[in-house]
Amino acid sequence: MIKVTALTLQCHDDCVRGNIPRPNLTFTLCFLKTMVNQVQRMDGGSQAPKSDSSGASNSGGESSKESSRCSTPLLDADRADRLREKMKRRIESGDRWFSLEFFPPRTSSGAVNLISRFDRMGSGGPLFIDITWHPAGDPGSDKETSSMMIASTAVNYCGLESVLHLTCCNQTKDQITAHLAKAKRLGLKNIMALRGDPLADVWEEEECGFNYATDLVKHIRWEFGDYFDICVAGYPTGHPEAESYEADLKYLKEKVDAGADFVITQLFFRAETFLKFVKDCRAVGITCPILPGIFPIQGYQSLRQLVKLSKLEVPEAMMQVIEPIKDNDAAIRNYGIQQAVDMCKVLLQSGDVPGLHFYTLNREVATMEVLKQLGLWNEDPRRPLPWAVSAHPKRKVEDVRPIFWASRPKSYIYRTQEWDEFPNGRWGNSSSPAFGELNDYYLFYLKSKSSKEALVKMWGEELMSEESVFEVFTNYITTQPNRNGHKVMCLPWNDDPLAPETNLLKGELEKVNRRGVLTINSQPNINGKPSSDPIVGWGPPGGYVFQKAYLEFFTSSENVTALLKVLKKYEPRVNYHIVNVQGKNITNAPEMQPNAVTWGIFPGREIVQPTVVDPVSFMYWKDEAFGLWIEQWAKLYEDESPSRMIIQYIHDNYYLVNLVDNDFPLENCLWQVIDDMFDLLDAPPVTVE
Amino acid sequence: MIKVTALTLQCHDDCVRGNIPRPNLTFTLCFLKTMVNQVQRMDGGSQAPKSDSSGASNSGGESSKESSRCSTPLLDADRADRLREKMKRRIESGDRWFSLEFFPPRTSSGAVNLISRFDRMGSGGPLFIDITWHPAGDPGSDKETSSMMIASTAVNYCGLESVLHLTCCNQTKDQITAHLAKAKRLGLKNIMALRGDPLADVWEEEECGFNYATDLVKHIRWEFGDYFDICVAGYPTGHPEAESYEADLKYLKEKVDAGADFVITQLFFRAETFLKFVKDCRAVGITCPILPGIFPIQGYQSLRQLVKLSKLEVPEAMMQVIEPIKDNDAAIRNYGIQQAVDMCKVLLQSGDVPGLHFYTLNREVATMEVLKQLGLWNEDPRRPLPWAVSAHPKRKVEDVRPIFWASRPKSYIYRTQEWDEFPNGRWGNSSSPAFGELNDYYLFYLKSKSSKEALVKMWGEELMSEESVFEVFTNYITTQPNRNGHKVMCLPWNDDPLAPETNLLKGELEKVNRRGVLTINSQPNINGKPSSDPIVGWGPPGGYVFQKAYLEFFTSSENVTALLKVLKKYEPRVNYHIVNVQGKNITNAPEMQPNAVTWGIFPGREIVQPTVVDPVSFMYWKDEAFGLWIEQWAKLYEDESPSRMIIQYIHDNYYLVNLVDNDFPLENCLWQVIDDMFDLLDAPPVTVE
Repeated sequence: MIKVTALTLQCHDDCVRGNIPRPNLTFTLCFLKTMVNQVQRMDGGSQAPKSDSSGASNSGGESSKESSRCSTPLLDADRADRLREKMKRRIESGDRWFSLEFFPPRTSSGAVNLISRFDRMGSGGPLFIDITWHPAGDPGSDKETSSMMIASTAVNYCGLESVLHLTCCNQTKDQITAHLAKAKRLGLKNIMALRGDPLADVWEEEECGFNYATDLVKHIRWEFGDYFDICVAGYPTGHPEAESYEADLKYLKEKVDAGADFVITQLFFRAETFLKFVKDCRAVGITCPILPGIFPIQGYQSLRQLVKLSKLEVPEAMMQVIEPIKDNDAAIRNYGIQQAVDMCKVLLQSGDVPGLHFYTLNREVATMEVLKQLGLWNEDPRRPLPWAVSAHPKRKVEDVRPIFWASRPKSYIYRTQEWDEFPNGRWGNSSSPAFGELNDYYLFYLKSKSSKEALVKMWGEELMSEESVFEVFTNYITTQPNRNGHKVMCLPWNDDPLAPETNLLKGELEKVNRRGVLTINSQPNINGKPSSDPIVGWGPPGGYVFQKAYLEFFTSSENVTALLKVLKKYEPRVNYHIVNVQGKNITNAPEMQPNAVTWGIFPGREIVQPTVVDPVSFMYWKDEAFGLWIEQWAKLYEDESPSRMIIQYIHDNYYLVNLVDNDFPLENCLWQVIDDMFDLLDAPPVTVE
Repeated sequence: MIKVTALTLQCHDDCVRGNIPRPNLTFTLCFLKTMVNQVQRMDGGSQAPKSDSSGASNSGGESSKESSRCSTPLLDADRADRLREKMKRRIESGDRWFSLEFFPPRTSSGAVNLISRFDRMGSGGPLFIDITWHPAGDPGSDKETSSMMIASTAVNYCGLESVLHLTCCNQTKDQITAHLAKAKRLGLKNIMALRGDPLADVWEEEECGFNYATDLVKHIRWEFGDYFDICVAGYPTGHPEAESYEADLKYLKEKVDAGADFVITQLFFRAETFLKFVKDCRAVGITCPILPGIFPIQGYQSLRQLVKLSKLEVPEAMMQVIEPIKDNDAAIRNYGIQQAVDMCKVLLQSGDVPGLHFYTLNREVATMEVLKQLGLWNEDPRRPLPWAVSAHPKRKVEDVRPIFWASRPKSYIYRTQEWDEFPNGRWGNSSSPAFGELNDYYLFYLKSKSSKEALVKMWGEELMSEESVFEVFTNYITTQPNRNGHKVMCLPWNDDPLAPETNLLKGELEKVNRRGVLTINSQPNINGKPSSDPIVGWGPPGGYVFQKAYLEFFTSSENVTALLKVLKKYEPRVNYHIVNVQGKNITNAPEMQPNAVTWGIFPGREIVQPTVVDPVSFMYWKDEAFGLWIEQWAKLYEDESPSRMIIQYIHDNYYLVNLVDNDFPLENCLWQVIDDMFDLLDAPPVTVE
């Protein structure tokens, strides 16, 4: 909770109170100048979609691949389905959903924060998120802050079903096709097709590559067949500059007929506005899902700004409440929350609203609160697998990973992004898994969420000895403040506080870290807990999950010498892998085979074994784990400072050790192994008389 | 035990006491006329092995395939290694082995018996078996009784590492190459290269395609590179017609230098004969393994016959013991056993003997007794997987099968013999597994081991009603004699008595069969028993095995109607699949996915899940299971006889049902499901007042 609050404050700074960044309004405002679409409709026309040599429309081919022998067990149908199918399933089952709109950040650290926000808000279970598109901000570039890269990050690294906005105004067909091809390559599967703002205040038709969103929808279908799911915008209050409300409906019908799969509306202030709009849409033959855009009022300035730009009218009754409290941010927000909750309840009760779409303004508190009050925020979402899955289509069958990256799933996804196939069912004898190098782009994900200053406070202004480092690890485990009163909220290998599961091991972890067994990853043994267990559960209901106890730590070579003696007693119960930064490695893994350490048994399914200890991958992880000492910790200090030399010494001389206790039904013996190691070290030396 | 005894007697009839069939002596006698081999040695010569376009020498290619992502977990290294590597490993570890020689049967029913014998003797853990080659008996043909087919059956269906004998005399190079290519295609990997007997009594060099075994060894290496492991024959007592003992040694050295991997010797009567021979071999530079050929004396006539043909001298001391008891078969056999045991002990204690090779004469008792007394017979061999693995190289990674063929593994292997890849790690969504049809060759394996007369006695001379059939099933379960005093030792779906594991369920099985739930396959639930468990254990030591309870049965459509009502209460705990002969099928398998019902967790390994309930394969099994009613049972009776019509009625109207209880840690609920079904059937009909 402390972390969430801190980041929420940061978010406030970042987004600027009451000062809505212009990009966020691209979609909000794109309705203002909607014009009649004269182009012949594709569905009635004679043109057939161009075949897509890049494989865009081969979803049939993909599904036939799925039916091959080694295919996914489809633990989670959501992973395989496309967005419109998910919606269809939810509508059929009556499960209401929500979705969240974000705009891209302006700075690289803003991007780091937004990605953390994706993780936190993603944990509430949105059906999808969408990322707005800002022609002025180089939205299709490779910059960390571009719409394209943010949406790609949401899909690939946060596992979120994502919709990328795309505007067609002021762009050539080729530019648009290039954006779409890139989006597809990055794993994006959904496009919100918008016209966008013309550059000049005066609308000049000639300046646009396409003039209307309908053209863009047709273009997407023509170039990419059925590959993308397409969303278009609806305008419930009628357009101030449109010929008429009826003409607007006609344009929307054309967009849908051109191939759009669903509609998200502009914001509105009264439930009946939306409900009438849906009724009118149905009357003109629009049958696809129509999602209301919900805007929880979060501040007086942002509301005023919005009203001015969108020419929406705030109802008199609302203004009468707001004006008197306009200088009280908390009161306005509370009012906004209450107003949104009330309106959403009416919408949901109508039966015409399968899901709610939230304009978050990149903030968390108001939207989360509305969702919680509506009972839509999924406090304890079922994890399909123990680790965060990626939403890239090529990874949808992935269901095995090495445990080493458990706290660094984004790094793992980055380093395996070039793989053509992903382990499914079994890790196998991957004698040379081609892990990507730790390059610059990677460093974006290598970066801590905390500032350098915060890190120095947590990890020590000045280290006196190896013991100072032991203390940092111990304080991280105990969550007790350090000598200078700062809590250690993260370590280079763990950017978040201890997982609830690791908390189960807290007492033991504290004891061993205090003595220089510097733990960076661990899991307790589990012998058949229900898959619904709130701490260790994952996968579909009605199953049982299992784990072998695992412990990974850095420790000195003296300790390793004693440990190796001790481990002889634990053959073959304990598997170990011990390596130093130079790659000297010692293991008893049989034939370098992977050891499954997490698995689940489910009704009507094959066995799923999502994490393994793979001795081969460990050699790649080793470079990353040792590298973090230097990149994240040593570099906080001056060159040749004692602090830096201490970290450098540990980096150069310590070993990275992993231990697995294969006897999962028995009490975890790994603590006994460490105790035995300490006993051996503490024993008086044998003297020859 | 009863079955074993019965078949042993049958074997006696088949092999004819004291009358050694000629084929068995092909190898035994092939040394008699060994001649000097003049052909240039390959290893010293200038010829390079011809490249093998059929992929014969691509064992490197195969092993690189093994290292791909989805490869075998190498649960059992023996499955992947070639014979010479297994020997090397055993020699290094000091584990002594034994091997068994058989000759091909003369009749088709002899073949069925020999295959059963392979299964029984295979259970003692021979390192390999070998099958002799008899030029007069069309040994390379597709006949069920040919050496080629018997060796292929041993490899493919019995999972035995097998050595096929091959003689070169009186055959052209092309004929020999064709035999070798066929052997390779059938999965055979080892050849015993022999000269064989010339046709005429007078030796005429010109009549032979090759004149000497050395030529054959060279030819195999030339044509097939390193694909085959090659064995050659050694002659410990010197050859009666050879120039000298020293010349014999020289010929053997030439055979080994030409590319042989190990040597098996002609039989002998004194340990010192063999030990001197090994010493002399080593002295001339023969370094490969040399295995003593052991011949336990089994009868007076067979010994006399052998002596006459082989010109071996039986030591005077032995003859003095044998002559007085020559009419007492049991006494002679006991003496033979004792003599063999004594000699083998000396051999093993010498340290020069890594393994013993037995000339079984296709009999079981004497060889098994010798092996048991030596402690080499593995009473409780570790099962690498719950089902019998095949030794065909292309199946070495196979580790998942549908449970339906649990009692009919040979049928499963036959029906999947054309597959190019075998499930490894996961069964997968095999939407159309190409199971072979039930054709004539298959019927060879469809045949019961029992005669038609025996079957009629067991299954009823005359059936009166469906209840008569229920009784047969019940008697099979209880092992109680039927009305006419005959025990039901097998059913069409189970050619053997109940497995020890199924015995665990005996009480429940009896109860439900009595009421027309005609069970053909079942397993209890197991929640983490040690892999060394004598009844349900399998796989490497130190592991844990698990099972979901499984029950498969035929039952009437009235029962199915009630069952379906009952099963609603057991959703989603119980998965079911119900089908009739027409293919009408009802299932709650999620997305037709396979359900893993047996799995194991082992130290340092990925999860192994050897059996699944696959709804797709079940539709193929269904045809086989229904077919057995007609092929094996109905056809015992006259056309249009009441007995036949009863079976036909069941075939036409009953359903085949399988049930899985997914909650393996809880008490098996499947009996409760059946009880509930009976309760529903027994309930008085609801009357409307």
